[in-house]
Amino acid sequence: MAVTLESIKEAQLKIAPYIVETPLLRADALDEFLGCEVYLKLENMQVTQSFKYRGAISKMLTLSMEEKQNGIITASSGNHGKAVAHAARTLGITATVVVPDTASPFKVGAIKQLGATVIECDVTERFAMSARLAEAHGYTLFHPYDDAEIIMGQGTAGLEIMSQHPALDTVIVPTSGGGLLGGILTAIKQSKADISILGAEPHNMPRYSESLAQKKRVKVESTSTIADALVTDQPGERNFPIVQMYADGMLKASETSISKATKLLLMEGKILAEPSGAISLAAILDGSYLPAADEKVCFVISGGNVGFEQLAQLETVQYE
Amino acid sequence: MAVTLESIKEAQLKIAPYIVETPLLRADALDEFLGCEVYLKLENMQVTQSFKYRGAISKMLTLSMEEKQNGIITASSGNHGKAVAHAARTLGITATVVVPDTASPFKVGAIKQLGATVIECDVTERFAMSARLAEAHGYTLFHPYDDAEIIMGQGTAGLEIMSQHPALDTVIVPTSGGGLLGGILTAIKQSKADISILGAEPHNMPRYSESLAQKKRVKVESTSTIADALVTDQPGERNFPIVQMYADGMLKASETSISKATKLLLMEGKILAEPSGAISLAAILDGSYLPAADEKVCFVISGGNVGFEQLAQLETVQYE
Repeated sequence: MAVTLESIKEAQLKIAPYIVETPLLRADALDEFLGCEVYLKLENMQVTQSFKYRGAISKMLTLSMEEKQNGIITASSGNHGKAVAHAARTLGITATVVVPDTASPFKVGAIKQLGATVIECDVTERFAMSARLAEAHGYTLFHPYDDAEIIMGQGTAGLEIMSQHPALDTVIVPTSGGGLLGGILTAIKQSKADISILGAEPHNMPRYSESLAQKKRVKVESTSTIADALVTDQPGERNFPIVQMYADGMLKASETSISKATKLLLMEGKILAEPSGAISLAAILDGSYLPAADEKVCFVISGGNVGFEQLAQLETVQYE
Repeated sequence: MAVTLESIKEAQLKIAPYIVETPLLRADALDEFLGCEVYLKLENMQVTQSFKYRGAISKMLTLSMEEKQNGIITASSGNHGKAVAHAARTLGITATVVVPDTASPFKVGAIKQLGATVIECDVTERFAMSARLAEAHGYTLFHPYDDAEIIMGQGTAGLEIMSQHPALDTVIVPTSGGGLLGGILTAIKQSKADISILGAEPHNMPRYSESLAQKKRVKVESTSTIADALVTDQPGERNFPIVQMYADGMLKASETSISKATKLLLMEGKILAEPSGAISLAAILDGSYLPAADEKVCFVISGGNVGFEQLAQLETVQYE
């Protein structure tokens, strides 16, 4: 099934009873720091504290009775795994989650608490391993982003953004495999809304910037980043063409800027996000994009799964 | 000038260009912890990070040219002082702030940064000292809560609550001297809205609970509380009759519950408040009020002035 505006609208109807329509806030206090009119789409307030629940529950609801009985498996750096585990529990389905060794212990703990079986492996092996186990056990494989149903689910965030504030100029979307970006792009661009949409990814893992420059899906070196939810080394096969067709640009953010953005959002914006969720602000702090002073920019805060202990890392960070 | 719904509406028009209409959020993730439908009125996102700016700028705008030239003085545990300092700077007025020794260094630092002169004294002496200095230097005295103009300004939060969500069942308001509670009560009760309004104060300093029980303004012992913005030992003279006439109840919260509420709001609600600002949630955690499961309860988050170092105090707090 192709990812279209129509299919995203259908997904929205289907998942409405399960998800939160997250707030889109005007955050005046951040204007002076980011140099524009700041709006925040708070997916850190979504069920399981990230946008991932949209796609997870959307796909879970399409399973046949037999697939439900056989159980599902997925590979995830944390947020998708938590979302899948929660969606599976909600619908009474057995779930296995393969997590990379880069995943935050906080996130892995949350997945276990939701009753899923957790298997750890090297970050570069996780998709191959989950595919092998799916084959061996008859599990349905839930790819975290390279899946039409998942992209449609994530796209519902784009429909909400348009209905909550139709007059935005720009939306900046945290990007890893491209599920959220692909979904939001399809929803907003196929609606013919006059909104510029940019992705934001870690400078350490610029899989989309490189791929767009080379006009093909490039695999980048797998390095570490504080943005532990954004560690995919290559754009998804289904996601890349959507990004290539519709995105107005791809921004990069340094590790320092990601830390600064997380602390700025907390101390001045009063919103707790995980570092990956604050990367859209980081791209601005980095000078990767220079908005106009009266530009209405919506920063998608993609997730909030961060342990209290992790906040200590921000203690010495200065954002001014 | 009497505090009436009409005067609060006038204040709202007057201060509109200076303040933020703060968000009123539906916070689904907190429902299971608080046992009701949770709404948050986010005054921690107000200018100077607390509701106090409403009253401060409202009163500042009423000064005559001569009063403006002579400067102003106030006594404050922090948030009011910061608000007054900011309002004074905005209108080009000299400000002196008398702060008690119980004030958080974080707040005192912010007041100094805004260009106000800071004088420290014992917490029980602060009003007498500011009155003496006002007399001696010809400053206009800005009482933090026992002042009609200040109460009207704070009441504008009540007007916003009604326009942002007219179908609430209950509003819970952090209470110290009674400026915010008095203003919100006047705005909502004189509008004949069918909303129950409760105050919340620290168990350690129950000035309103005691005064309401004894039907007169009682002075309670000045003890310490983590809710450093709620340290007034006696209800205000102008505030008490309003609270007596209109309030549907006064809740108390223990120190433990205040810490738990602050961490709960941060980790599950994704909102950073200072402990005083989270006391309305604390009253529920304490069992001081038992809402119905389908009750729409709006928790006024009165402020967010908390230093990053202070968050460390929450590390070992368990809210579940």
